[in-house]
Amino acid sequence: MNGAQALIRTLVGCGVDVCFANPGTSEMHFVAALDDVPEMRGVLGLFEGVVTGAADGYGRMAGRPAATLLHLGPGLGNGIANLHNARRARTPVVNVVGDHATTHLAYDPPLTSDIGSLARPVSRWFRSSRSPHALSGDAVAAVQAAFGPPGGVATLVVPADASWQEAGDPLSGHPGPVLGTVGQDAVADAAKAMRSGEPAVLLVGGNALRARGLSAAARSAQATGAKLLCETFPARIERGAGLPPVERLGYLAEFTIAQLQGARHLVLADALAPVSFFAYPGVPGYLVPEGCEVHTLATGTDDAAGALEALADTLGAPVRVEGAAAARPERPTGALDAQSVAAAIGALLPEGAVVSDEGNTSGIFVPGATAGAPPHDWLCLTGGAIGQGLPLATGAAVACPDRPVLCLEADGSAMYTLQSLWTQVREGLDVTTVVLNNGSYAILELELSRVGARDPGPRARSMLDLGHPDLDFVALASGMGVPAWRATTADEFTEQLERALSEPGPALVEALLR
Amino acid sequence: MNGAQALIRTLVGCGVDVCFANPGTSEMHFVAALDDVPEMRGVLGLFEGVVTGAADGYGRMAGRPAATLLHLGPGLGNGIANLHNARRARTPVVNVVGDHATTHLAYDPPLTSDIGSLARPVSRWFRSSRSPHALSGDAVAAVQAAFGPPGGVATLVVPADASWQEAGDPLSGHPGPVLGTVGQDAVADAAKAMRSGEPAVLLVGGNALRARGLSAAARSAQATGAKLLCETFPARIERGAGLPPVERLGYLAEFTIAQLQGARHLVLADALAPVSFFAYPGVPGYLVPEGCEVHTLATGTDDAAGALEALADTLGAPVRVEGAAAARPERPTGALDAQSVAAAIGALLPEGAVVSDEGNTSGIFVPGATAGAPPHDWLCLTGGAIGQGLPLATGAAVACPDRPVLCLEADGSAMYTLQSLWTQVREGLDVTTVVLNNGSYAILELELSRVGARDPGPRARSMLDLGHPDLDFVALASGMGVPAWRATTADEFTEQLERALSEPGPALVEALLR
Repeated sequence: MNGAQALIRTLVGCGVDVCFANPGTSEMHFVAALDDVPEMRGVLGLFEGVVTGAADGYGRMAGRPAATLLHLGPGLGNGIANLHNARRARTPVVNVVGDHATTHLAYDPPLTSDIGSLARPVSRWFRSSRSPHALSGDAVAAVQAAFGPPGGVATLVVPADASWQEAGDPLSGHPGPVLGTVGQDAVADAAKAMRSGEPAVLLVGGNALRARGLSAAARSAQATGAKLLCETFPARIERGAGLPPVERLGYLAEFTIAQLQGARHLVLADALAPVSFFAYPGVPGYLVPEGCEVHTLATGTDDAAGALEALADTLGAPVRVEGAAAARPERPTGALDAQSVAAAIGALLPEGAVVSDEGNTSGIFVPGATAGAPPHDWLCLTGGAIGQGLPLATGAAVACPDRPVLCLEADGSAMYTLQSLWTQVREGLDVTTVVLNNGSYAILELELSRVGARDPGPRARSMLDLGHPDLDFVALASGMGVPAWRATTADEFTEQLERALSEPGPALVEALLR
Repeated sequence: MNGAQALIRTLVGCGVDVCFANPGTSEMHFVAALDDVPEMRGVLGLFEGVVTGAADGYGRMAGRPAATLLHLGPGLGNGIANLHNARRARTPVVNVVGDHATTHLAYDPPLTSDIGSLARPVSRWFRSSRSPHALSGDAVAAVQAAFGPPGGVATLVVPADASWQEAGDPLSGHPGPVLGTVGQDAVADAAKAMRSGEPAVLLVGGNALRARGLSAAARSAQATGAKLLCETFPARIERGAGLPPVERLGYLAEFTIAQLQGARHLVLADALAPVSFFAYPGVPGYLVPEGCEVHTLATGTDDAAGALEALADTLGAPVRVEGAAAARPERPTGALDAQSVAAAIGALLPEGAVVSDEGNTSGIFVPGATAGAPPHDWLCLTGGAIGQGLPLATGAAVACPDRPVLCLEADGSAMYTLQSLWTQVREGLDVTTVVLNNGSYAILELELSRVGARDPGPRARSMLDLGHPDLDFVALASGMGVPAWRATTADEFTEQLERALSEPGPALVEALLR
């Protein structure tokens, strides 16, 4: 058994049985070994940003890591943006990067670079395997590190000669995250704050955003009158009819400031104290109001849902609170705009859907329109690195073959990792992509004015303009084998979305919002 | 004047007047300042790999750096692969990366990461500007560092608050590379080796690959009987009818070994001693034959062409040698394959063309078929990070608006940075792209057997297969506004290529090689 075979067998033995791959020569033994270990499913991506984003989507939905397979420093480089998002999402990912044979590095051949320096900013664990005999143990350590807690990207560099040389036996294990139990002091402190009679906010995030944590949080909020909010961009949140509704912190600092205004206590359940996404001249970066005391109930290594249940019980909260009422918007007619797009999605979102949300500016009304839709999961852009949506949807669909996946994608962001569509066809994934085509980096038009650049000139505006030429997403999708339609009215969009959702494989609807 | 304005004015004052950009919020003041400094041309890319590859292509052809504009660590990450190629090409690039305001970093907002750790592996110079008053001086230093020698990527991180705060006056300068003059000892040593009567190879690269250096090298080879070779993947080489022909070192180690077999002296003129691109079990990595003495005539910081002229004069070489004869293949007919594609290109390559060559496996016959075409420049994949070809062609076309650009692009590589086509349309660039669509990562099929994985199974083979679904590059190009045609016969391909070359803007021909 060579090192590559031992590595793959060990990963499978640790429950890692999907590998999103874009391999090169130094990874050929890994590729060859896929036929020796049929338990490992290899999923090819045409670009590394697809590979790493898919691993993120898979990990968020499966609750266990996928492996990647990347080609040396440049291949890793192409995957960094979505590894950055995975890092912020705390998604477990076993990030396998092939390298030159150890004996070859001294010659500094063209593809050589400092892989460690590239990997560390996105990795919570990094190791370069030094021999084929170390590979199995390194793989177990990588899986364990990926799980954490907190979860994250564990990067394992595999030199080509470690892959091709004779290795020891594979290992196995059942690593997984062991969340800490929050102590009574933290629960009592949070309870005291929420009972104080002073305005309090309970801010939930991370592990607290599944039904169990949200229910407990809603109970405490109802019992005390505290305001319940969740983080701006959750990695994964369960929502929809019957689930406790929770308002998200705003993206713009001004909105967050308004949401927190007057709060004297901020209780954090696996959420960070709010800060502005970007800095702006004259706007504060730290958004907790002056005089507001911050209470940390649970961090990312804790069982936040358990802590929230303990808090609710301490508060003597009602055992059950009302979830969101089942409600769908009417099927929209007339003009196609951000609101009618949202209404159509709200009208049609299937039960059990997984929504990968990179709708950005034009997607702003969709969360509201789907609040009463049948229960579903919502995945957000966690690290701000655009180009996440399509790969994330791809990986989520691999993790959840029985659930429909809806990808809300802004035109600008779509063009980063559009190659995802090809993988969706190849793997027969049930992903419906909605491209919100407004012909611009609309978020930047807003930001340009917000940073103080008033009345921008034509050359600045042209840097935010995605027309000239217009992007034709129907043609682009067709070029990768995805059936696609373009909608210019709300009626067309609704019909096309319905059709796309009803088809088993991938499909794309381009909503022309210009 | 704010920092962004001072930065752009300083860059222009140093001769850097093109900026390939994919900006975000933290770069909005830079974008706004484009209207204040009309001498700076902003060129938008839809993805950072386009931006950095275009800067590489621009720098190779213009001989001076373009600036980039990238958005924090993830934006830089997306550009790393082509910065890696630029580093290996020693192309001058001023790589501007926006960052959060200095006051904002402490809050670790979502887009924060260690930009320095990401940048250093591809940068020969790195600095994070600490204040608006430092920006102009930092920009001058970055331009100087980009020029070298050796040239390379100079990464300047610009915090948002340095951009928006009041800054001092812009600076200007005329930095540029000052190449060293090679001493008489090195020239005499090389001359002695080449006169020794023992088999000698003169290996030229880098700065030696323009007409002047190549002519001098050819004179010395002719005078001594030494074999003249050039590096495997030149950043830029002048070639064609009337220019001295030079054989390139092979990509596969076995070929290089055969080319160097029996050599007792290897004279290096701005070239590195040959090493294998990848390691293979049982194949040597260092390819200089045993018993062959290596003589360094010139390094990357030297005036290699001047050194070659001194060598030729020392050797009493003829003042002029015959260049390649003008010769074009016949227009091909019949089946479309790698050879007829090459013949068509050889028959039609326009005078003064710039060829961006990422044709990989299917492009193997094109250099031979164009050896007698009218004079042209040839740009190769220097760092092995695929996805270079289309962006490089884009940047070369910006640098050389009066020259036709031909991009030879393999299907697999094309899918990395296809967004380049959109920038070509927007800027009206005269780039003709030939996509060699063989439906596979063909180079990896070869490599899979070479690394010792014989008789690969279906799962391994599927990782190298680009069919299922087939990529339709005509549809993909149309989606970005590029006129495109598909050829299935040599006659069709020749007609379509002729038409594409005759049109002023971008066009694409997909050669179906299956």
